[in-house]
Amino acid sequence: MVKSSNTSRDRLLETTAQLLELQGYHATGLNQITKDSGAPKGSLYYYFPEGKEELCSEAVARSGQAVAERIRFGLSQAPEPLEAIVRMLQGMAEHVGEAGDGCGSGVSIAAVALETASSSERLREACAKAYDSWQAAFREKLMAGGYSAERAERLSLILVSLIEGTIILSRTSRSGEPFRQLAEEIPHLLAKKEG
Amino acid sequence: MVKSSNTSRDRLLETTAQLLELQGYHATGLNQITKDSGAPKGSLYYYFPEGKEELCSEAVARSGQAVAERIRFGLSQAPEPLEAIVRMLQGMAEHVGEAGDGCGSGVSIAAVALETASSSERLREACAKAYDSWQAAFREKLMAGGYSAERAERLSLILVSLIEGTIILSRTSRSGEPFRQLAEEIPHLLAKKEG
Repeated sequence: MVKSSNTSRDRLLETTAQLLELQGYHATGLNQITKDSGAPKGSLYYYFPEGKEELCSEAVARSGQAVAERIRFGLSQAPEPLEAIVRMLQGMAEHVGEAGDGCGSGVSIAAVALETASSSERLREACAKAYDSWQAAFREKLMAGGYSAERAERLSLILVSLIEGTIILSRTSRSGEPFRQLAEEIPHLLAKKEG
Repeated sequence: MVKSSNTSRDRLLETTAQLLELQGYHATGLNQITKDSGAPKGSLYYYFPEGKEELCSEAVARSGQAVAERIRFGLSQAPEPLEAIVRMLQGMAEHVGEAGDGCGSGVSIAAVALETASSSERLREACAKAYDSWQAAFREKLMAGGYSAERAERLSLILVSLIEGTIILSRTSRSGEPFRQLAEEIPHLLAKKEG
């Protein structure tokens, strides 16, 4: 397969993903996307004839996939799920801390998910699919590490909730501290014996 | 003290709080607030001369306080923190499930927090203060239940992250299931022995 050299389309999607994470769906206007991406005027409706909803759904799908890949890579860095997850959370604490406003963590589609859950079925589904793929990455690692299918299902859902919730608190408090606190406590949540 | 009978102001704040939870900050316009609240035209700038940012900050403060009170009430329903928290999460699963789109849970300022963290210091601070007050409610219950101050601090932060993150996944999946799964696993997180 020859890799697509369709850079205007890629730039549009990348810029959209960044703006969605930073400021959400409603504040992100098509003019800003075109301007920030440097894509030629007119290219937006050429590649995304259905407009903002189509462009943003594809941007969410693309972000979601990139995050799922990063989660899988992170989880592959240690054989045991617990150790891999603790390291991942410590990495997020540093990353979020560096970004200052807790943004740029690159893993949050939460703003779009919240804004559009009751207004756009297309965007709601794109967000749901992204969360499912993140959950699958955690679930597989947990099952490979000896957790039962049922518990791996529950824990993976909770880990995704935790990451999204902790990003909110990190951005609000402008600090990586919430991720560090989470890394300290996660061994309890993932304990294999009954609590 | 005579209770304020300032009902237009109250209606404006209540409508704003509902709209912020449902659709976020940017999609919520002053015209819609005035119309939905039934408050007389002109009353918005009379009570909130600084406009949308002032009105929304006060609405977030008010929602935040109401949620903190509900958390305290919920936690008072069982002597042990674990039992009280499990019951609270089960209640949220039902509430979110009933609402259909996972909205109306009344506890999420997450959309506003995410949209405004990097654009409005005033709103960011209002959200941070609300989260602090929710965290304080959990922390006090945990400490009264025998958890160390340090662990109660960490766990209470994580519980607030979990609630916000689980609301996102509930709204996205249109289901109370994420809260039910969380209720099943929370005994692990709150285990008093080292994991």
